[in-house]
Amino acid sequence: MQYSFAARTKIMLSSPLHLMRSLSERNSFISLAEELPAEELFPLSSLEAAAAAVISKSPTALQYGEPQGYLPLRKWLAGDWRTFKQIDVQENQILLTTGSQQAMDLLARVYIETGDTVLVEHPTSPGFLQILKMQGAIIVPVEGDAEGMIPENVVKQIERCRPKLLLVSPNFSNPTGILWSLERRQQVLSICKSEQILIVEDNSYGDLHFDGRTEEDFIERYPSLFALDGSGAGDQVLYIGSFSKTVAPALRTGWAAGNQSLIYAMVAAKQLADWQSSNLNQRLLHYMLESSSFDIHEHIKLLNREYETRLKLMLELLKRPAWKGSSFDAPIGGMFVWVKLPEGLDSIALLKCSLDKGVSFLPGTLCYAENEGKDSIRLNFTHPGRDELLLGMNLISEAITEFTARS
Amino acid sequence: MQYSFAARTKIMLSSPLHLMRSLSERNSFISLAEELPAEELFPLSSLEAAAAAVISKSPTALQYGEPQGYLPLRKWLAGDWRTFKQIDVQENQILLTTGSQQAMDLLARVYIETGDTVLVEHPTSPGFLQILKMQGAIIVPVEGDAEGMIPENVVKQIERCRPKLLLVSPNFSNPTGILWSLERRQQVLSICKSEQILIVEDNSYGDLHFDGRTEEDFIERYPSLFALDGSGAGDQVLYIGSFSKTVAPALRTGWAAGNQSLIYAMVAAKQLADWQSSNLNQRLLHYMLESSSFDIHEHIKLLNREYETRLKLMLELLKRPAWKGSSFDAPIGGMFVWVKLPEGLDSIALLKCSLDKGVSFLPGTLCYAENEGKDSIRLNFTHPGRDELLLGMNLISEAITEFTARS
Repeated sequence: MQYSFAARTKIMLSSPLHLMRSLSERNSFISLAEELPAEELFPLSSLEAAAAAVISKSPTALQYGEPQGYLPLRKWLAGDWRTFKQIDVQENQILLTTGSQQAMDLLARVYIETGDTVLVEHPTSPGFLQILKMQGAIIVPVEGDAEGMIPENVVKQIERCRPKLLLVSPNFSNPTGILWSLERRQQVLSICKSEQILIVEDNSYGDLHFDGRTEEDFIERYPSLFALDGSGAGDQVLYIGSFSKTVAPALRTGWAAGNQSLIYAMVAAKQLADWQSSNLNQRLLHYMLESSSFDIHEHIKLLNREYETRLKLMLELLKRPAWKGSSFDAPIGGMFVWVKLPEGLDSIALLKCSLDKGVSFLPGTLCYAENEGKDSIRLNFTHPGRDELLLGMNLISEAITEFTARS
Repeated sequence: MQYSFAARTKIMLSSPLHLMRSLSERNSFISLAEELPAEELFPLSSLEAAAAAVISKSPTALQYGEPQGYLPLRKWLAGDWRTFKQIDVQENQILLTTGSQQAMDLLARVYIETGDTVLVEHPTSPGFLQILKMQGAIIVPVEGDAEGMIPENVVKQIERCRPKLLLVSPNFSNPTGILWSLERRQQVLSICKSEQILIVEDNSYGDLHFDGRTEEDFIERYPSLFALDGSGAGDQVLYIGSFSKTVAPALRTGWAAGNQSLIYAMVAAKQLADWQSSNLNQRLLHYMLESSSFDIHEHIKLLNREYETRLKLMLELLKRPAWKGSSFDAPIGGMFVWVKLPEGLDSIALLKCSLDKGVSFLPGTLCYAENEGKDSIRLNFTHPGRDELLLGMNLISEAITEFTARS
C-alpha cells in the first residue's frame, strides 16, 4: 500500500544523520564522527560484579519499576550533586531517562507546540536539532564567541521572535567544545529569568575536562546554570545529562532534573513513550556507584587523563601540512574538535572521499538548522585509540590533500 | 516562572493512568491493576549466566550499538517466527524497541497527524489510548463481540470517518481478553487491504494461552494478521510485541516488524527519541535465547501452566456472593479478566474503597477514549501469587459488599 507518513516524518527522513550512524557501524571503519566513549576504559569488572549481585539478590530487579526511575539511584544522584556540583535537589525533582537525548525529547514533547521558537547555540547538537524539527519548532541560532553565547544577541533574538525555550550546553558545547565563562552564564540566565524563557541545559560533557583543575575548582569556576538558578528553585532551568560518557552508553541511563511540575509532566510523557527505562540497568548502575570497588570520580579522572592525551595527539596531527589553512580553537574538555576547513573545501565532498578510505567524521552541516556548515567538520577524539586516531587522521589528511592538490 | 506547556500535555496530565501506577508501587499493596508478569518465574539463573558471559566477553556490549537493535537478536527473532509463527521476515524488517509501548509510540509519531482518525477496539489498551491522544488523533472505537471486531462495523466507520490506522490486539485484547476468530481476522484484514488502511497488530499477549492447544495448533488456528498478510509482504500490517511478558520486563526489549519503508522511518524516529535501546540488554537476551540452558518455548509453557492456575482461581473467586450481578467472559489466555460490575456500582468509587483496603485494579474508564467504562474493571491474574490473589480478591469483595449492602 501507499503509506501516508506525517509531514514531519518526511523532514526527518531528509536528514543524513541516521545514515551517518549506520555507515560507521562497519567494523573495519574508523569513526571520528560519533560521540562514543573509549571502550577500553569501561569498568567491566565492576559491572560484572554488579550484575552477579543484583540479579541474584531479588527478582524485583527484572520487574517493571517506577516510571520516574529507580528511587535509590535518584537519591544517589541528588547526594552526589549536593556534594560535588553545588546542586541541591530532591529525588522527586529527578526523572531517569534513556540518555540525555530522551530527556530532551520528552521536554520537547510536553513543552513545544508546532511554530514555537527555540533559541539554540550556533552551531548546535545534531541530535537535538532533529528533535526540535520533528516537534515543528522554529529554530533560531544565537551567535556566540569563545566565551559562550553573546548576551546582546540573546536579547536581540528574544525581542525579535519571542522564543519559548533556550537550549544550551555551556560545558563544552556540541560541536564546538566551547566552555562558557562564568559571566556569560550569569548574564544569559538573568536575561532568561527576566523574560520568562525556560532554559534546557545539557551537561552531558561537563565532567570531561582536562584543564588541570580539580573537580571542585572546575565547578567553582564553571557552575551549571542550574546551580546558579538555585537548583531548580529558580524554576528557570531544566538540567539534563547522562552516565553514557562517564560509565557506559549501553546502560542507557540519563536524567532530567528541575522544577517538580516540569518533571511531573515529563514523567507522564515518559510512561506514554516507553513506560520506563530499564529498572535492571538502573540497579546495576546504582550497585556500582555504591560499591567500594568503583569510584566514579576516580574513574572520570582516569578517563580525563586518557582523553587529554588523545586530544593532544589530535591537535598535533592537525598541525600537519594537509590541514594548512584550516582553523580551530583547542578545547579543554568534551569530546570534539570543531575544525574550519581550508578555504573552498566542502565537508560533504571531503566526507565522501574519507568514507572511501575507511574513516568518517561529522560534516558541519548537521550542526545547523539551515543550510550552513559546509566549511566545517566535527572530529571526535575520545573513541579512537591512539593508533586508530593516528590512522584516521592520516586518512582524512590524504583526502584533504587530494582536494587541495587538485585545485 | 509560569510554564507554558503544550496543549496536548494538559490533556495527557488529566488522565489518572500515571497516578494508578505510582499508587501501586507501595510495598504492602496488592496490585491487580497492572500488567505485570509473575516475578517468581523469572529465569534468574539463565540471566545471571548471560550477564557473566556477555559482560566479560567484549566491552562492545557496553558501547552504543545499532539504533535498529542488536543484529543477532533481530536474526534470532526472524528465525523463531519462521519456525513457530508462520512469519517470514528479514532482519532489516525488524526494529528493536523499549517494549511494545515504544513501538506503538514511534509508529504514531511517524504516521499520525493531528486530526487523523484511528480505529480501535472498544474498549482498548489504556497505554495506547494515551499515545493516540498525545498525537492529536481522533479516536474512533469499533464495536466487537466475543469473536473480535465486527467487520460490518469496521466498514461503517471507514465510510463515516476515513481512518488512517486500525489498532488491534487479536490475541487476548487488552482489557477484554478476547481472542479473535480466524474468520474475523481474515475479514478485517481484507477490508483494510481494500481500503488501504494500515493495521497495527499488538501481539504482546499472544504467547500466553491456556486452551490446552500446543503452540503449533494455536498458531494454525489463530495466525496473526501479519502472517495472514504475508509477513509484511502485503504491506498492510505492522506487527508489535515484546519479551516483557515472556522473559522479563526490565530487559525493556520489544519490537516492530513490517514493511521496510515503515521500519526505516521508525528507526529514524527511534534515534531522535533515545538513539537506541540498551545494547547490553539486547545482548543478554540474545545470549539466553541461544543458550542450551534456557528454552523460551519451554519457559512459556511453564508460565502458561501457572497462569492458567491463577486464572482458574480468579474465576472461582468471582463466583462468590459479593460478585453477584457482575458478569464476564472467561478468557483462555492473556493477563486479564474484564468484569462488568453489579448494576449501579461505579468502578472509580469502588477503586477508592479498594485502595483504602490495600488492593488496586484498573477502572474501566481508562480503556475508553470518551466517558465510558464506569461499570467495568480489569483484573490482572498473572502477577499476584495464589495467596495474594486470594487476599486481593477478598478485599475487593469486601469493598463491593460495602457498596451493595448500603444500597
